[in-house]
Amino acid sequence: MTQATMNEKLRDLFSPGSIAVIGASNSFDKLGYHVMKSLAGNYQGKIFPINPKAEKIWGIDAYRSLKEVPEQVDLAVIVVPASLVAETVHACGRKAVKGIVLITAGFREIEDAKGEVLEHDLRAMADRYDLPIVGPNTFGYVNLTLGINASFTSEFCQIEKGGVALISQSGGMCHLCGFLAIDERVAMSKLMSLGNRCNVDFPEMLRYLVEADEATRVIALYIEGLDAPRDLIETAASLRGKKPIIAYKAGRSEKGDSASRFHTGSLAGNHDIWTGALRQAGILQVESADELLDTAKALDACALPGGPRVAVLSGQAGPGMIASDALERVKLQLSRFAAATQEKINNLLPPIAIRTNPVDMGPAWYNPKAMLEILQAAVEDEGTDGVIFLAMYASANLKLAEELEKYMKALEPFRKPVIACFTAPPGIWDESIKRLDRQKGVVILATPERTAKAMSNLWKARLLWGEKR
Amino acid sequence: MTQATMNEKLRDLFSPGSIAVIGASNSFDKLGYHVMKSLAGNYQGKIFPINPKAEKIWGIDAYRSLKEVPEQVDLAVIVVPASLVAETVHACGRKAVKGIVLITAGFREIEDAKGEVLEHDLRAMADRYDLPIVGPNTFGYVNLTLGINASFTSEFCQIEKGGVALISQSGGMCHLCGFLAIDERVAMSKLMSLGNRCNVDFPEMLRYLVEADEATRVIALYIEGLDAPRDLIETAASLRGKKPIIAYKAGRSEKGDSASRFHTGSLAGNHDIWTGALRQAGILQVESADELLDTAKALDACALPGGPRVAVLSGQAGPGMIASDALERVKLQLSRFAAATQEKINNLLPPIAIRTNPVDMGPAWYNPKAMLEILQAAVEDEGTDGVIFLAMYASANLKLAEELEKYMKALEPFRKPVIACFTAPPGIWDESIKRLDRQKGVVILATPERTAKAMSNLWKARLLWGEKR
Repeated sequence: MTQATMNEKLRDLFSPGSIAVIGASNSFDKLGYHVMKSLAGNYQGKIFPINPKAEKIWGIDAYRSLKEVPEQVDLAVIVVPASLVAETVHACGRKAVKGIVLITAGFREIEDAKGEVLEHDLRAMADRYDLPIVGPNTFGYVNLTLGINASFTSEFCQIEKGGVALISQSGGMCHLCGFLAIDERVAMSKLMSLGNRCNVDFPEMLRYLVEADEATRVIALYIEGLDAPRDLIETAASLRGKKPIIAYKAGRSEKGDSASRFHTGSLAGNHDIWTGALRQAGILQVESADELLDTAKALDACALPGGPRVAVLSGQAGPGMIASDALERVKLQLSRFAAATQEKINNLLPPIAIRTNPVDMGPAWYNPKAMLEILQAAVEDEGTDGVIFLAMYASANLKLAEELEKYMKALEPFRKPVIACFTAPPGIWDESIKRLDRQKGVVILATPERTAKAMSNLWKARLLWGEKR
Repeated sequence: MTQATMNEKLRDLFSPGSIAVIGASNSFDKLGYHVMKSLAGNYQGKIFPINPKAEKIWGIDAYRSLKEVPEQVDLAVIVVPASLVAETVHACGRKAVKGIVLITAGFREIEDAKGEVLEHDLRAMADRYDLPIVGPNTFGYVNLTLGINASFTSEFCQIEKGGVALISQSGGMCHLCGFLAIDERVAMSKLMSLGNRCNVDFPEMLRYLVEADEATRVIALYIEGLDAPRDLIETAASLRGKKPIIAYKAGRSEKGDSASRFHTGSLAGNHDIWTGALRQAGILQVESADELLDTAKALDACALPGGPRVAVLSGQAGPGMIASDALERVKLQLSRFAAATQEKINNLLPPIAIRTNPVDMGPAWYNPKAMLEILQAAVEDEGTDGVIFLAMYASANLKLAEELEKYMKALEPFRKPVIACFTAPPGIWDESIKRLDRQKGVVILATPERTAKAMSNLWKARLLWGEKR
């Protein structure tokens, strides 16, 4: 299959007009129940539940077999036992479905030799019918752009729609990151676990997401280990600079490495070699789930800094110190304001304030408009490449927070990255934070330390890929 | 004042039978409104709002001045302008209040020389009346043990009651950490910002919390800079091993350092010297707000490990690999199970599972009881000093999550530290996680990486302080 063909096939797989759920169920204890839950009521196309016994599943007419479905089926989501997968895939081939999500586990990831044989047969069928198969051993995929949740985890629908595609070799890590994404407002285009990667692997997904998926602006990978890492590296290198690609690579420890072999059937390999290869391929490497999400979110919403010089503006002095410390730790610099910038800031703050970088905006606390004017002055400063903006609100300052939101909405988007940490107790300012996040080139992250880490990754991104397109 | 006397005075200050709010207000824009909000409806003792104009504030009879209050006033919370503070403190002295929380700012933290003079006078008054004064330039304190919120941030009442005292030199960082504590279920005894530390400073608080405050089991400090750091270091050294003390020290960067001088009127000082001094004093140093909270929470709820050997048990393979990687990064080891332990685990897992450390419990996923038996076997293993236990749940596994909770409740507390990461989408398993957290010697943290970091700090704690009392 050429990649152009594969891109077409993946486009069909991710935007089906109809979906059959083979192994659909009304029983809560079956994954086929939860796949139906994810689709029913959300998916706009036709759903065909397939189950030899049921008449209606989730209130939708079911068919005893795929071949009984009187219409075209674009995507088949398979949740039958491993022993029934071969005949099910044949049925899909004969029905001319355009793609398969194979949730069933028990293939080459199991110690038993039988799993290896099943997987070998599966690949032969995929070739024979020229069918893209996501999995086996996957929870499925979610296309947030089109509102299609072809997975057994219905809660992934709570993730906001946006530009980040998360492609994970592990279902567990994808769940962890997906749940964190809900809480931390990382807006996504797609979320998927590759499972055993029958014929939809990292290289195919990278090429598809970069070349053929407009909704995706940033690609975040979670990688454990690959049989043919060179394919991923070469594909990424050939796509370098077209869309940001970042990766969290597991398997640093020897034990973690051998765990990988069992998990998805491949060795993680030497971590240092991976680090070098990722850098060479122009993939930005991160070191934690938090960092993966923060960096992807910032890459999607912010401009890239033209240099390492950062201004820290804080409504409270303490968090500003912490951000300054954290910048030093990630080897960025506090910028030195030009005279004109300093004068503007001096005019906005009473003399009792620290008006040099880091700027304690505390004395302007009751004047959110002035705080934003300081922000604008810092962004416009010629010696400043990015800005960290910090403010902690509680109910006592709620009016000020609301004023900040009002003035912020009226601003033009910032042409330099602005990474904010706005915190407030649960329920106090949540909706405003939701509205402000990822707007005007500003992202909001959880702590001052994390703003600095994300800023350093934006600078690394600029060095790797040049200016943002 | 001797420290024994100071301990008595602080005990009174933190457990007043009556509180006067001087500067109480019915106007949302005044801090005196928010202090009233924090107290009214929560505080069980008598509240006396003081305001020259108001008849009732928050529905409570107000007095025009403190001297008009016909009863004993134990604590005065002062929120009047800086120019009125001197006469107000004199009034408190004459009324024989037992302690003052001075929220008003505008003392030595401002650039104006006038602030320095005001603060000098304040110290003289404190000496003259033998009065402990928290602040000036503080948001106040919260005593969660007794449900007293003497601060302008009413939401701090949402923090759960527990053993962690957070003493911060910065109001902003204390707000950040307090809000994170609500979300992350860090249970606290006290929370306060020292502000300009008139005569209640780190040494006084440390001694009081260790010697006289039974509710406090772990002390978490946020430090910017001190005029007399030796006092803190010597006090901590003299209390070494009695209760765990951990610290997050700001001012690593030169600029952060000079910011500190303005913020609370003192230099942060050379970071390396601080690191050495903290170690010498037996204070465990952490490097982020997340780490401060995670470590304090784990120290409060968990046993300390007898060594650096950790078992990783994961319901999904990916997070187990990540935890193994993270353990290597923090220089802990994956334990090697004794033959008897390995046999127990082998019997609980089918042959298709990775049964050596890290243990992929995936094949026992539908048997939460077996997962907990594996946990028990790992805790009892002679070659294992602590256990990391990971499981990601969603609605598809809700019954399993509920079973896990049921079996977990029936267990005896673990005598080795168990640090868990249980994640689920918002609203799915929140209440269970709340009920399970900090029970049976288990804490639940946000990510696999953070479980490893917290475990390494428990091991450092053991090396610093010996076994937990």
